[in-house]
Amino acid sequence: MDINHLSTPTLILDKARLQRNIDAMAERVKALGVDLRPHLKTTKSADVARLAVDGNFGGITVATMREAEYFLENGITDITYAVCIVPSKLDQALSLVDRGADLKLLTDNADVAGAIAGHGGLFKVLIEIDCGEHRTGVLPDSPELLEIAGILAAGEKTELAGVLTHAGHTYACRSKDEIIVVAEDERAAAVLAADRIREAGHPCPTVSTGSTPSVMFARNTDGVTEVRPGVYMLGDMFQVGIGTRSIDEVALTVLTSVIAHRRDDNQLYIDAGGLALSKDRATAAFKGDDDVGYGLVCDLKTTKPIAGLRVASVHQEHGLVTGDRPLPFDDLPVGSKVRIMPNHVCMTAAAYDSYNVIDGDGGFGEVTAVWGRCNGW
Amino acid sequence: MDINHLSTPTLILDKARLQRNIDAMAERVKALGVDLRPHLKTTKSADVARLAVDGNFGGITVATMREAEYFLENGITDITYAVCIVPSKLDQALSLVDRGADLKLLTDNADVAGAIAGHGGLFKVLIEIDCGEHRTGVLPDSPELLEIAGILAAGEKTELAGVLTHAGHTYACRSKDEIIVVAEDERAAAVLAADRIREAGHPCPTVSTGSTPSVMFARNTDGVTEVRPGVYMLGDMFQVGIGTRSIDEVALTVLTSVIAHRRDDNQLYIDAGGLALSKDRATAAFKGDDDVGYGLVCDLKTTKPIAGLRVASVHQEHGLVTGDRPLPFDDLPVGSKVRIMPNHVCMTAAAYDSYNVIDGDGGFGEVTAVWGRCNGW
Repeated sequence: MDINHLSTPTLILDKARLQRNIDAMAERVKALGVDLRPHLKTTKSADVARLAVDGNFGGITVATMREAEYFLENGITDITYAVCIVPSKLDQALSLVDRGADLKLLTDNADVAGAIAGHGGLFKVLIEIDCGEHRTGVLPDSPELLEIAGILAAGEKTELAGVLTHAGHTYACRSKDEIIVVAEDERAAAVLAADRIREAGHPCPTVSTGSTPSVMFARNTDGVTEVRPGVYMLGDMFQVGIGTRSIDEVALTVLTSVIAHRRDDNQLYIDAGGLALSKDRATAAFKGDDDVGYGLVCDLKTTKPIAGLRVASVHQEHGLVTGDRPLPFDDLPVGSKVRIMPNHVCMTAAAYDSYNVIDGDGGFGEVTAVWGRCNGW
Repeated sequence: MDINHLSTPTLILDKARLQRNIDAMAERVKALGVDLRPHLKTTKSADVARLAVDGNFGGITVATMREAEYFLENGITDITYAVCIVPSKLDQALSLVDRGADLKLLTDNADVAGAIAGHGGLFKVLIEIDCGEHRTGVLPDSPELLEIAGILAAGEKTELAGVLTHAGHTYACRSKDEIIVVAEDERAAAVLAADRIREAGHPCPTVSTGSTPSVMFARNTDGVTEVRPGVYMLGDMFQVGIGTRSIDEVALTVLTSVIAHRRDDNQLYIDAGGLALSKDRATAAFKGDDDVGYGLVCDLKTTKPIAGLRVASVHQEHGLVTGDRPLPFDDLPVGSKVRIMPNHVCMTAAAYDSYNVIDGDGGFGEVTAVWGRCNGW
């Protein structure tokens, strides 16, 4: 089916761009000399995962137990669950291990480490390190690090698998130079933690880092064994804003119909609102043209931005498009379609249960495949 | 299963509160002397719909074609699709009509009215009126109103079903008195439009109004035939802020686990982030305590707010909870659970494919049912 005949709103995935983004990251990571463990929390798709692990060592990262289960069911066994585990989820984790998952859990807490060690299940566990984002994780020079390592190492059926950190504060950076500094902080924190664990006599085979920005711009990955970027596969307007992707590399758009004109107010409405685009306003961090409202309005056929338009506000199923110059109402009659590049693709894609895949770069034409997603928890 | 044993994050629906909200609205609408056509875009659930239409005339409102199809499959036939239709969706609409739906479409555009009349399908159509929100709809005193009415009335297989308006600008009100004024503007606009259509010699059987706030506080519904509130069933912190619900009436919470402590920073993390809560910041419109961040943190067992806590920020799967006083870390160990009342329940609920239903008011204990939802488009 021609994408122009799809019911709206719906997702269009440009496979040529996806593949190019995947190839570029594989090459980048190869040059860095580390393993690539792509994070699938953005795409949540087994079809995308197969492309992302192709040529790499085959492991992935997930953020929910449902993702872990879904990817296991789709044949991917080497899975790191990169959110701090709670004891009540251990039975579910063990059932995945029993079904063949090489699952790595994460903790930053001695009590939880004790619960894992005392559970009786065969668990591999990473210790989360706070490298400066100050979200979850222990500080690399903290006594808690060695306390947790000791508990896990002493667990009869527990394997201390290493350390993991996430430099989420790269998203607060506004230049490549700032990201380079954060990426080095990230590396240094993970390596310091690993060194301390080893000096204490414990194993630490895995040293895992990596957001998309820090992997893109890191100067040095000495001591790091793997990286976990994810959003690079699709890209979005926030990634364009911080310079990890160009607009021509954003692989996902929301196809939407113009549903109303308000010519007197220089406004039109689309059937992509707060649910279809998400209410993420990450691009508000950028000044001027880089703040695209709730997404960048692009031409149906070329996926090029339509100059001067922005999604200024959203209701549940209505998006308001306006601009500083007169809108091209005659080119965009009611019933015509445009495509919206999302602000934050992880949030936007989560509203949909599938991708309409097209092959051509800049994507127009036939849908060649429909790929599923696993949402929820 | 006891809700304390559910995997998190997940939705808890308090059936006692739901039923009370539904009963209160039925009584309110009966007193107003109009029909209740509940909007199901919030709950998207056939089980909720059955309660909401019970004792009323049986019609519902939806915001997506998928909702229309889902509710039809679940035995509800009288359906108003309250978003402006585009010609490309007419075939889908007709297939619903052919399967037994008494479907009402909506338009504010003469070209679309012409496309509907020329389509060949048996369609009932409402004209959308702009009563002051300035979203979609024609002004009640505009020439376009009669132009569209004339096109629809002349359509051989098209039935002009009436007018519909939505006072979405009640959400910009900050007092009951302001809402009363908007509700009267809403009524007056719909009735003026209906009168003009009738004076032009066309039928206008339906005069449809109603957001939850305007229905709650309207003083007069003369000339109105039906109202379409929806969010009243569940309530949320925005509705609490504008006074249509009290905290004790909010029927939906997100069950979430504490996954990490940062005692030195007086912070803890929960496994409900931007996907599980949504990034809706509607409550930012309220000053002080009414701005609860990304949701109100409540006790697991009593559903009472835990004083002083707020969800200050969200990542995809992490929510940061902090407060102005020391957090009760010892009462909320890692692995314990809390419940979050959503800011905007329409956005939050859309991330989940089902509700865990509990019977007790203030809800704790056994899950007595799991009710499905229909997300997407």
